[in-house]
Amino acid sequence: MRRTLKAAILGATGLVGIEYVRMLSNHPYIKPAYLAGKGSVGKPYGEVVRWQTVGQVPKEIADMEVKPTDPKLMDDVDIIFSPLPQGAAGPVEEQFAKEGFPVISNSPDHRFDPDVPLLIPELNPHTISLIDEQRKRREWKGFIVTTPLCTAQGAAIPLGAIFKDYKMDGAFITTIQSLSGAGYPGIPSLDVVDNILPLGDGYDAKTIKEIFRILSEVKRNVDEPKLEDVSLAATTHRIATIHGHYEVLYVSFKEETAAEKVKETLENFRGEPQDLKLPTAPSKPIIVMNEDTRPQVYFDRWAGDIPGMSVVVGRIKQVNKRMIRLVSLIHNTVRGAAGGGILAAELLVEKGYIEK
Amino acid sequence: MRRTLKAAILGATGLVGIEYVRMLSNHPYIKPAYLAGKGSVGKPYGEVVRWQTVGQVPKEIADMEVKPTDPKLMDDVDIIFSPLPQGAAGPVEEQFAKEGFPVISNSPDHRFDPDVPLLIPELNPHTISLIDEQRKRREWKGFIVTTPLCTAQGAAIPLGAIFKDYKMDGAFITTIQSLSGAGYPGIPSLDVVDNILPLGDGYDAKTIKEIFRILSEVKRNVDEPKLEDVSLAATTHRIATIHGHYEVLYVSFKEETAAEKVKETLENFRGEPQDLKLPTAPSKPIIVMNEDTRPQVYFDRWAGDIPGMSVVVGRIKQVNKRMIRLVSLIHNTVRGAAGGGILAAELLVEKGYIEK
Amino acid sequence: MRRTLKAAILGATGLVGIEYVRMLSNHPYIKPAYLAGKGSVGKPYGEVVRWQTVGQVPKEIADMEVKPTDPKLMDDVDIIFSPLPQGAAGPVEEQFAKEGFPVISNSPDHRFDPDVPLLIPELNPHTISLIDEQRKRREWKGFIVTTPLCTAQGAAIPLGAIFKDYKMDGAFITTIQSLSGAGYPGIPSLDVVDNILPLGDGYDAKTIKEIFRILSEVKRNVDEPKLEDVSLAATTHRIATIHGHYEVLYVSFKEETAAEKVKETLENFRGEPQDLKLPTAPSKPIIVMNEDTRPQVYFDRWAGDIPGMSVVVGRIKQVNKRMIRLVSLIHNTVRGAAGGGILAAELLVEKGYIEK
Amino acid sequence: MRRTLKAAILGATGLVGIEYVRMLSNHPYIKPAYLAGKGSVGKPYGEVVRWQTVGQVPKEIADMEVKPTDPKLMDDVDIIFSPLPQGAAGPVEEQFAKEGFPVISNSPDHRFDPDVPLLIPELNPHTISLIDEQRKRREWKGFIVTTPLCTAQGAAIPLGAIFKDYKMDGAFITTIQSLSGAGYPGIPSLDVVDNILPLGDGYDAKTIKEIFRILSEVKRNVDEPKLEDVSLAATTHRIATIHGHYEVLYVSFKEETAAEKVKETLENFRGEPQDLKLPTAPSKPIIVMNEDTRPQVYFDRWAGDIPGMSVVVGRIKQVNKRMIRLVSLIHNTVRGAAGGGILAAELLVEKGYIEK
Repeated sequence: MRRTLKAAILGATGLVGIEYVRMLSNHPYIKPAYLAGKGSVGKPYGEVVRWQTVGQVPKEIADMEVKPTDPKLMDDVDIIFSPLPQGAAGPVEEQFAKEGFPVISNSPDHRFDPDVPLLIPELNPHTISLIDEQRKRREWKGFIVTTPLCTAQGAAIPLGAIFKDYKMDGAFITTIQSLSGAGYPGIPSLDVVDNILPLGDGYDAKTIKEIFRILSEVKRNVDEPKLEDVSLAATTHRIATIHGHYEVLYVSFKEETAAEKVKETLENFRGEPQDLKLPTAPSKPIIVMNEDTRPQVYFDRWAGDIPGMSVVVGRIKQVNKRMIRLVSLIHNTVRGAAGGGILAAELLVEKGYIEK
Repeated sequence: MRRTLKAAILGATGLVGIEYVRMLSNHPYIKPAYLAGKGSVGKPYGEVVRWQTVGQVPKEIADMEVKPTDPKLMDDVDIIFSPLPQGAAGPVEEQFAKEGFPVISNSPDHRFDPDVPLLIPELNPHTISLIDEQRKRREWKGFIVTTPLCTAQGAAIPLGAIFKDYKMDGAFITTIQSLSGAGYPGIPSLDVVDNILPLGDGYDAKTIKEIFRILSEVKRNVDEPKLEDVSLAATTHRIATIHGHYEVLYVSFKEETAAEKVKETLENFRGEPQDLKLPTAPSKPIIVMNEDTRPQVYFDRWAGDIPGMSVVVGRIKQVNKRMIRLVSLIHNTVRGAAGGGILAAELLVEKGYIEK
Repeated sequence: MRRTLKAAILGATGLVGIEYVRMLSNHPYIKPAYLAGKGSVGKPYGEVVRWQTVGQVPKEIADMEVKPTDPKLMDDVDIIFSPLPQGAAGPVEEQFAKEGFPVISNSPDHRFDPDVPLLIPELNPHTISLIDEQRKRREWKGFIVTTPLCTAQGAAIPLGAIFKDYKMDGAFITTIQSLSGAGYPGIPSLDVVDNILPLGDGYDAKTIKEIFRILSEVKRNVDEPKLEDVSLAATTHRIATIHGHYEVLYVSFKEETAAEKVKETLENFRGEPQDLKLPTAPSKPIIVMNEDTRPQVYFDRWAGDIPGMSVVVGRIKQVNKRMIRLVSLIHNTVRGAAGGGILAAELLVEKGYIEK
Repeated sequence: MRRTLKAAILGATGLVGIEYVRMLSNHPYIKPAYLAGKGSVGKPYGEVVRWQTVGQVPKEIADMEVKPTDPKLMDDVDIIFSPLPQGAAGPVEEQFAKEGFPVISNSPDHRFDPDVPLLIPELNPHTISLIDEQRKRREWKGFIVTTPLCTAQGAAIPLGAIFKDYKMDGAFITTIQSLSGAGYPGIPSLDVVDNILPLGDGYDAKTIKEIFRILSEVKRNVDEPKLEDVSLAATTHRIATIHGHYEVLYVSFKEETAAEKVKETLENFRGEPQDLKLPTAPSKPIIVMNEDTRPQVYFDRWAGDIPGMSVVVGRIKQVNKRMIRLVSLIHNTVRGAAGGGILAAELLVEKGYIEK
C-alpha cells in the first residue's frame, strides 16, 4: 500500500488554492495537510475562504487553521503546491526547493528558467528530467516544476496534439476568458458589465511565448515545419464568466489537411498520464463535441470523468484546404491550474521524483 | 431649400426601429412621420416602446399613434425603412415597392436578389444602379435596397477598405456580439449569464456570404487575388453586452504587407458619403485606436462625430509578413442597421432615386 | 428492506425536472424511472437536456429515452413528480391522480383547491390528511399534493417558524429572485443586463396569498394575533442570477420581541422531517449566518448537509422594539421545487399514503 | 448679463467627476475650468478619463490638461466641486474653504459637522444659512456645503416629501444599488456575477443616519410624530447594474393614510429650486410612474427634463391602513452626486453665497 503524501497549499484561500483543496480532499494518496495564507493566518480556513467553486468547503478542512508560508513549519510536508501570484512566487518557491521540497508551481516566475520544466503531462512528460540538471546546477535537494498559464494550456493542449502529427505552420487564436483567471479582487466589475475587456499586448505575447515552449517540447511524428517557421498569434479578452476560458483557433498547415482527420486525432489523443492511469488523468484529455453550438462555458467546463480536467473541443471545420477552425474550452482553475498541478505531482511520484 | 421627406418606420417599436426614430428625430430633411407596428396599433408610441438606447423617447414622437403596416394609409410617405424580421419582411417590402415606395430594408429576405443592392454606401455605392434593372424587370415604380447583416458590416467595412488596395487573400474572423442584434425578446437570459453562446454554422455561413458579396462589389486598385481565391471564415458568438459587435480579424495577404501601412489606409479611408457630405456620414467611417486595450464595447460603440456610425478599429498588429491582426467594433443597431439605412437613403436622395 | 419506488418526472428536461433527476439519482429508495417530456420524446435524455445545475447528467440517466406524458405507459411507476408549467399542469395532474397515481406537483394549478395540501413538510405536515377528503370527494385512487411557489417558500419557512412562537403581525418583503425561477427560455436577456426586472402586482399578490395559506396551517404556540390581523406585502424582482431567491423581510410584532430570541428560534427550528430523519430532510431547515454580508447567492445557495435544502437566514437585526429585519436565501429549484417535492414524497411514504 | 463662473472639479477623472464635466460643459453659467486629478496630472483629460456615462468626452474638454489639486494654482476659480473619496476629501476641502473657495462636497467627511449643510435643495434649502456660522466659527472666507450619500438621497427625497405632510412614523428600506456608487475599481467582478453583494451593517447604518438628518431639517406641515419616534431601517445591496440605485420602501404612518393621496403629494412635490427655476432643477423632482413594472433601472434612470435629476417613484400601493409601499430609482452619479452638487451651487449663487 502506498503511503499518504502530505501537501502544503500556498495561497490556499485564493481561487486556485480552493481548487487544490477541493480536489485533494478526495485524492487517493495526496492530502491537504498544510494550508498557507497571508492575511488570514491563525483563522479557521472555513471562515476566511471565499469558496468560488462547486460544493462547499470539505468538513474536515473547514476547521483547519490557516498557517504562515514558512518551510520551517512544514517538517512533515511532502509536496508544495504554489499558486502564488507573479513576483511573490519566485523567491518563495526557490526557498522551498532549496530546503528540499518538491514545488509544483502555477506561477509565471520560473516558467522560462531553462532548467525548470513547464509541464503539461500529456505533452512533454520527458521534460521532467530537467529536474536533475536543476538540482545539480542549483545544489538543491528539492526542485521546482511549473505548469503553464491557463490560457496557454487551452490552446497548447489541442495544438500540441495536432503539431505532433501534422505539418501545422500557424495558429491564430482569439480568447474569451473568465474572471477567475485574474484572481480576487482581480477584474473590476465596471470593466466587464456590458463590456469586453481586451487584455492587451503583454497578455497576448506571454500566451504565445508559453505555447511556443510547449510545442518545442512535443515529440513529433512529422519533421516539418520547424518551429521557427510556425506563426502564432493570440488576441486575448476577459468577459463576465466566472470559470472557463473559451478560445477560437484558426490552425494552418503546410499541406492539405482534412478537418475530419484532425478531429479523429484529437479524439484519440492520449498521453503518459492515461497510460499510467494517474488518478487525476481524465480518460480523454480532449473531448470532442459535434453540435455546432458547443462547447458552452456554463455547460461544458466541468465535462469529463475527472471534472474540469479535459479540454473540450468543438466546431471543428475545414476553412480551406490548408486551414481548419476549432474552439477549445478549458477549466482555467482546474486543468489550467490546480488540476494540472496535481496531475504533474502524480507523474513526479510515478517517475520517482517524489517519494511514494 | 430642400423639402422635408416623410419616412415610415416599419417595426418602429423594435430595437432597430427605435434607432431610426432617435436618429430621424434630429435629421435635417427626413422626418419620422409614420410609425408602423403590430401588437401596439392604436396606442401612443411613447407608452408601448421599449427604449433600449440612449436618451428618452423624443417628446414630439411620444404621443404619435402606432399605426398598421399598410401602404394605403401612407399616401404622403416618401421613404419606407424596414427593419422587419426575416420572413415577415420579404412580402411586405415587395408590396411597398410595387406600390411605388422606395424601401430601405435591414432584413435578410432580399439581400441576395441579384437586382437588389446590398449597400454599404462607402464601399459599393455604384450598386445603386441595380435599381434600374429591378424596376424594369419587376415593373415596379418603387424599389428595394438592402443593407447587410450588422455582423457582416463590422468585418466588411475594414476588409473592404483593405481589399480595395491590398492583395488580401484571407480573413479569419471571431465575433463577440451583443444581445440587441437578436431583437427582443431574443436571447434567453440563461444563455448568456456566466456563459458564451455560440451562434452555430448557419450564422457563421451567412456572415461570410454577405462579406463575399460586398467584397465582390468593391472597386479595387489591385487586380489580385481574385475573389474566388480569397478564404473567409467566421466563428460567431453572443455574450451579455447590450449593443456593439466586437470582431477579431486575422487578415492574410498574397504578399508581404505592413500593418503600419494598412493602418494608415484604414485611417484615411473615405467614400462617396464623405465626399457628398451626407448628413449621417461620419467624417471617418473607420476610427483607428492605438491603445492596446481599445476599442472596448462600453466605451467606444458610440464613437465618432455621428455617434455609432464609425467602425472603431484597433489592436492592429503584424502577425507575420503576410498576416495582420485587427479588431473592429460596430454599433450593430446604428451603423449596422438604422444608421446604415438612413445613410443609404441619403445617398439615394443625392443620386435622384428618391425625389428631393 | 425497503422496496425501491419508481418515479416518473414530468417535464424532466426543464429546470426543475433536472433537479429531480439529479437528486433522485442518488436517492436511497426513489429512482428516476420514467422521464417524460414533450418536444424531445424518443431522444436520449442526455442529448436533449440543458443541464443548468451542478455536475453532469448522471451516466445511467443520460441514455434513458424521453417518453410521452401518458399514464398508460407508466404501469410500474409509483410516484409522479410534476413540475409542469401553469395551465398545462392542472388537467394532466388530475388525470394521473384519477388513474391512481400519487402526484406531487410544483405547479400552481391546484395550490388553492381546498382539498389539496400545499405542503412545506416542516410547517404543515398534518395537512396531508386532506388527501383522504380529496380521494373521497373526487373518487380518486391516487391524489395530488402541491408545494408552494419558490418565492413564497423563501419567506414562509422563516415566517412560519416565527409565527408559530411569536405574536407576529406583519411581514414586509422585498425579493431579488434568480432567472431559473422563470424557466427556460424564460426571462429575455435584455430585461436583466444592467437592469432589475420588477415582477409586478400579480406576482406580488400570489406570493402573499401562498404565504397566508401556509401561515394559516402552522400549529401555533401563541394565540394572537389572528391571521386576519396579520399584514403581509411583497415587492418582487428578478435579476441576472442563475439560481437562488434572496429576500429581505421586515417582520413586525404585536409586542416587544427581541431579535436575539427570534434568531435562536430560527436556529433551533425543526419539523417532522427532521424527527423522522427523512433522507432529504436537512438537519437544519434554517441555517443562520452571523456575518453581516451573508448569505450571498453564489456562496450560500447550496449550503447545508442536503445541499440546497436549507433556507439560509442572515442579517437578523432589531429595527425597533416590535420589528426585526432578516434576509433569507432559498435555492429555488431545490428546496423551492424539486427538493421540496421529494421531501413531500418521503413524508407521504412515511405516513402510508405512498406504499413502501 | 451673468458672468460665467469657473469651476474646478477635484477627482475629475472619477465616476462622479465625469458627470460634473458632462453636465457643466452644457451649463449656462458654470464652466469646467480646472480639472484636478492625481495619477494623471499633466496628461490630456480625454486620454486618461474612463468615460463611464452617456455620450463622449466633450471636445473642448478632451484636450484640457489634468492638473494638481492645489488651491494656489486656482486663482481664477469660483467654485470647487469635490467628489473626493472618504478620508482624502476632508482635509483638502478644509484647505480650500480656508483659502476662500466655496466648496461643494459629495464626500462623507464633513456631512455631520454641525455647521456644514447636508443639502438636498428641494428639502432643506434654509440650512444654507449654517454657512454664516461655519465661516464665523472657523474664520474661513470660503465654506463647505455637502450633499448626502446617493443611497440616502434615493430614499430621502420621497420620504422628505411625505414626512412634510403626513404623520409618517417609519420607513423600512431595501436597496439594490449599482456599481458606479462604489467608484472605480470599486466592486470586484467576482462579487456581482451570479451574485448579490450585501453591503453590511456599516452601510445600512450610514444610510439611515443621513436620512434622519435630512428629515430633521424638513419644514413640516404636521407636528407629529416627533423624529425620535420615527423608525428607519435600511438593508443595502449592490448588483451588476452600472448606474441607478433602486430602493423599495415600506412607509408606515401614525394614522390612516391613503396611498392615492401620498401619490398625489409626490407628483406635486416642488421645492425652492423649481420656484427659482434653477437651470439644473428638474420641473418635477419626483416623477411618478403608474405601470406596475416600472421604474426599471435601464429605462428610467435618465428620466425627466433634466436627465437623471428626477427621482422616479412607482409601485405605490396600500399595504394596510397605516402603511404604503413604493419604490424609488435615483441616478446615483447625477442627482445622487454631481447633479445634486451643481443644483446646490446654483442655489448658493441665487442666495448670494457665491458671487454672480
